[in-house]
Amino acid sequence: MYPTNRGILKPTNYEWSRFMKAPKYKVIINYVKEQITHGIWPVGSRLPSQRDLAKQFGVNRSTVVTALEELAADGLLEGKLGMGTIVINNTWTLMRSAPPVNWNVQVGRGTHQASLSTVQTINLAESDKSLIQLSKGELSQDLFPLEEMRSVLIKVGHELEPFGYEDPKGNRQLREAIAQYLAQKGIMVDASSILVVSGALQALHLISIGLLERESTVFLENPSYVQSLSTFQSAGMKLHGISMDTEGIIPEMIKEAHQSKNSVLYCHPNFHNPTGTLMGETRRHELLRLAETAQLPIIEDDVYGDLWLDSPPPSPIKSHDRHGNVLYLGSLSKSLNPGLRIGWVAGPEAVIDRLADLKMQTDYGSSSLSQRAAAEWLSSGLYEKHLTNVREHLKVRRNAALEALQKHLGNYAEWEKPEGGFFIWVKMNSDISLSDLYRKALAHGVLINPGRIYATQKMQNFRLSFANAPVEDLIKGIAILESLIED
Amino acid sequence: MYPTNRGILKPTNYEWSRFMKAPKYKVIINYVKEQITHGIWPVGSRLPSQRDLAKQFGVNRSTVVTALEELAADGLLEGKLGMGTIVINNTWTLMRSAPPVNWNVQVGRGTHQASLSTVQTINLAESDKSLIQLSKGELSQDLFPLEEMRSVLIKVGHELEPFGYEDPKGNRQLREAIAQYLAQKGIMVDASSILVVSGALQALHLISIGLLERESTVFLENPSYVQSLSTFQSAGMKLHGISMDTEGIIPEMIKEAHQSKNSVLYCHPNFHNPTGTLMGETRRHELLRLAETAQLPIIEDDVYGDLWLDSPPPSPIKSHDRHGNVLYLGSLSKSLNPGLRIGWVAGPEAVIDRLADLKMQTDYGSSSLSQRAAAEWLSSGLYEKHLTNVREHLKVRRNAALEALQKHLGNYAEWEKPEGGFFIWVKMNSDISLSDLYRKALAHGVLINPGRIYATQKMQNFRLSFANAPVEDLIKGIAILESLIED
Repeated sequence: MYPTNRGILKPTNYEWSRFMKAPKYKVIINYVKEQITHGIWPVGSRLPSQRDLAKQFGVNRSTVVTALEELAADGLLEGKLGMGTIVINNTWTLMRSAPPVNWNVQVGRGTHQASLSTVQTINLAESDKSLIQLSKGELSQDLFPLEEMRSVLIKVGHELEPFGYEDPKGNRQLREAIAQYLAQKGIMVDASSILVVSGALQALHLISIGLLERESTVFLENPSYVQSLSTFQSAGMKLHGISMDTEGIIPEMIKEAHQSKNSVLYCHPNFHNPTGTLMGETRRHELLRLAETAQLPIIEDDVYGDLWLDSPPPSPIKSHDRHGNVLYLGSLSKSLNPGLRIGWVAGPEAVIDRLADLKMQTDYGSSSLSQRAAAEWLSSGLYEKHLTNVREHLKVRRNAALEALQKHLGNYAEWEKPEGGFFIWVKMNSDISLSDLYRKALAHGVLINPGRIYATQKMQNFRLSFANAPVEDLIKGIAILESLIED
Repeated sequence: MYPTNRGILKPTNYEWSRFMKAPKYKVIINYVKEQITHGIWPVGSRLPSQRDLAKQFGVNRSTVVTALEELAADGLLEGKLGMGTIVINNTWTLMRSAPPVNWNVQVGRGTHQASLSTVQTINLAESDKSLIQLSKGELSQDLFPLEEMRSVLIKVGHELEPFGYEDPKGNRQLREAIAQYLAQKGIMVDASSILVVSGALQALHLISIGLLERESTVFLENPSYVQSLSTFQSAGMKLHGISMDTEGIIPEMIKEAHQSKNSVLYCHPNFHNPTGTLMGETRRHELLRLAETAQLPIIEDDVYGDLWLDSPPPSPIKSHDRHGNVLYLGSLSKSLNPGLRIGWVAGPEAVIDRLADLKMQTDYGSSSLSQRAAAEWLSSGLYEKHLTNVREHLKVRRNAALEALQKHLGNYAEWEKPEGGFFIWVKMNSDISLSDLYRKALAHGVLINPGRIYATQKMQNFRLSFANAPVEDLIKGIAILESLIED
């Protein structure tokens, strides 16, 4: 139901309910709640008259009454004789009237601010099943390995022994299975240098609250999906976007920008989100050298690495790391299933120890059941078999998308063929307004992610996911884009 | 493996490895790592000679060599001809040399600082199977419902349908099962007012980072197990302990201390940890009235509520809450199993929405497998059956513990009989030094939790858990305490 650019504050319920055509009384309820939440209507204030509300929302007075009755039952309102309807409670909302992250102040360092409402709208639109999802960075449910997942669970069930809290770094068997899996990528780490996390986002959360000082600089690819998250920003980090070329993030530009000790490089060498770029082998070595000489640690995010379509990618940067400069993130969310909530961090043991402490302080570890299921997937060979199948299907999807793009948008856009992952980064000709296209597409039932939510500057690109929608919808959606442009 | 007072920074590996008698070369490795981590030996610095290290640790030089070789393989050290052994890497550790929470500065508001090393030692000692665990707040593995857990998993496996990211508030079926379960306690909430979390600690983490302003005051029972956690403090909250009587926390004392708007009351009415106190019905109403009149929101922690032993406790405060002043926390960790990592928060929908957003930003939701298993436990009636069994066994354990206390410590201590939960709060006579008793007990293989880790002042109590150790160990452990006192 959710995309790769999650973890974003929702639009107000009110905006959303209007957008999604919720029942009218619900729209009114959400509107009233938000006036109270935001302190616009403090405790003791009187609501507009029922007649005025009815007029404002273009509904019958009975609809207004239904809404107010529900709000009264919630303890938020009270009808007082001769005084109309009064706000009687907002205790919790008094405590913090603004969301914890102030998106208006800091989303990037550039002059162009990512649009809050766009990110929010996309986030919720991604769970709208009536839309053609050219946006969602999640494997299609057609690719859910139902038989295998069932058999894994049943096996875990049959073999279950009593369990309780797991080891702070995660279930031992799972960590050993991860160590073996990483060894196939050339990453030689002991289970004690691995932390099991509930997905790569949690790893970023732990790193940002536990390893980085406030005001640290995070260098990252520009564009980057992290620009649409609040993970680093809410921990007080500054994001500093670095340009990319066809080989990935450009080391010289990091060198130029790297001033203080308190910096870290976050990068995404395999099938970068959103651009699909595959970082070449030389570039990987250059980044590692930079890390070594400039004491700039690297967070290497490899959640798409298993989803190569043509040939395996070069070895991870981590596989060449001899001095513990790289923290490596992986996950089953993209390649197998996000509902397991299983990912991992591999790095120097002292760092992993610290992250494990922090994980204990926030959630006492990941689900024992998920950890056991993940261990079974990895160690039984089922995961490798699943990958073979997924790659085959994703390749068909990618090729269909490329073909449809050529047919329908060949005159209006350009793109590179991605060698893996979920995304094609489509650059529209400069005379086409991306924000218009996004809006019109949404109105016509097609959801795309305009590039500006990933970048600090204006973008002529959108991110097209070929992983989620059925192939026929993929083609249909691209055709609709063509017709909208021709309009 | 872990207790109720978790989420605490570990002692240094070095201290711990010495304490636990790890192999000597491991002790040396941990020592060297920590010198580097803490910046005592910066990059480029030379280690003491092998001979000096051997002398310092009282080992052969070959043991030192083994340790240094392992550290060199980790990329931390390098032997340089004629220069000895040099530190060559500490990139990650440079970034933040102190742990994120500075325990030395702020653990309570009183004059007595909780001892860091005691909390840390206990935390790790709780996973030492050779000790008699009079400390651990976790159900004995004898009470793990193995057959039922297996059958639940197998059923979930057979009935599995494709899943992905769950709804931000958690799996719908689970939330509906929780709503029904809460209705039995008189808490009438809709599934949309419930957030599934990975245990009650995560709820506290989300509340403290998302609802409370920095510098807010958290009123809480004194003593409170929260004093041994860093959850609120690491989010910048001030803890303000309030005295208790036999009915629980004293409302008048909150009134006196309550100055600013930015305050919240955290309390634990059912079988309070660590004292076992059950809050009376009148007291519950008083607290709710206080919340209403003083606009002081309440976080009601009810993780032990299902574990009543004699008769069901009064209804939760939340069941009387008509104005959305109470956030109610529950969990399966204490009463069923902590490895599921499933708990919940019930409260005003607007607050739950906000917490759900925050949960998305930190981990994208809890495990789908655990959520499905929890839903099955709750809706099948298996959970209720399990509780009946657990209550019966816990009652036997409590009574055995009380009897042993009477027999062995009757002359040295006093206590109240707890009506539920896991703990007896044993108050030693004033001529007995609690810290001596704790240390000697540990040296003799018995782990108790001295009261001072839960309080801001000195305490003559210790927390005895009757939930974890086998009954014969429970009795044996108490007898050992007697012999230590008599010495």
